[in-house]
Amino acid sequence: MAGKDIEKLIKVVAKLPALGQRSARRIVLQLLKKRESLLLPLISALRDVADNVKTCEICGNFDTESPCPICSSNARDASLICVVQDVADLWAMERGGMFRGKYHVLGGILSALDGVSPEDLNIEKLFYRIEKEGINEVILALPATVDGQITTNYLMQKLKPFNIKISTLAQGIPIGGELDYLDEGTIQLALNSRKLL
Amino acid sequence: MAGKDIEKLIKVVAKLPALGQRSARRIVLQLLKKRESLLLPLISALRDVADNVKTCEICGNFDTESPCPICSSNARDASLICVVQDVADLWAMERGGMFRGKYHVLGGILSALDGVSPEDLNIEKLFYRIEKEGINEVILALPATVDGQITTNYLMQKLKPFNIKISTLAQGIPIGGELDYLDEGTIQLALNSRKLL
Repeated sequence: MAGKDIEKLIKVVAKLPALGQRSARRIVLQLLKKRESLLLPLISALRDVADNVKTCEICGNFDTESPCPICSSNARDASLICVVQDVADLWAMERGGMFRGKYHVLGGILSALDGVSPEDLNIEKLFYRIEKEGINEVILALPATVDGQITTNYLMQKLKPFNIKISTLAQGIPIGGELDYLDEGTIQLALNSRKLL
Repeated sequence: MAGKDIEKLIKVVAKLPALGQRSARRIVLQLLKKRESLLLPLISALRDVADNVKTCEICGNFDTESPCPICSSNARDASLICVVQDVADLWAMERGGMFRGKYHVLGGILSALDGVSPEDLNIEKLFYRIEKEGINEVILALPATVDGQITTNYLMQKLKPFNIKISTLAQGIPIGGELDYLDEGTIQLALNSRKLL
């Protein structure tokens, strides 16, 4: 059909998240049509990322510097660490710009199904940081799923001996959430944690 | 938030068809996590395409060779040309593998709205090919839209003096099409072109 190089590129692009054979083909065609304005800039942007981006040795964030700007910032509360599953979650927190502490990226959560055990996660480093960096509080901002809960419980147990504050994100009705569209679990949870006005 | 290089890559990826800011971010994170198995292979596949793929000087197809394998094939009926809007349409025809003639890619269709006039399309080359290559029949396989119809009509007028067969793809109910889900235009068209059994 198309040349070997084109077929190979379509196959690689189809491996990207949320893309299939069909959308990969459309993307590759667009790249071929817009060689100067899309294909070459994409190659150079990918090259720059491949050459310059590293994993932050302290928190696990991706950045061109290690330690990353968040870890090396003096304007942030170094006594407060927010533990997240993934760099994506760190970015999501940063988009809001409401958190002024530091982060720790676990690189996953415990999962019996996927065979993820504590040794697979970036946990030892967390304990090390708590000891060395004078941490007062750890916020466990892990997913509100069964595996997320299990990981949160596991970390809570392990963090107890450190004698620091441990917290999790509040759960309840999201902003704009209509009861009609929410699952019963969320509604029950919001009901149980209801606040007196 | 993320490093400059990452932000730049997200911006470029978000320009690809059907991708937005959110999916671009997810893709870039995946690339960063799978550096060896995804990021580097993607760069090398893009590099190969950028270095090797050209536009076929005869039909307008994309391939590593010019003329492309379809144009230089002896197994194909050189007296039959199928005119398509885009390389994507050529690929769609080839996926079926039912067409054994050659192609001609217009590179667009006439459009008053988008300001596309005949000079913007690969039309002169088509006339040249008809004269030089001993073409017997031209199949106009352009989109079944208003602009596609206008382009088909325009080409029909221009092709008349050549004294060759001119045809278009049949229109009607697609395979698996349920009347309930089809627009009235298609149903009326299928009714008007109904076949006696």
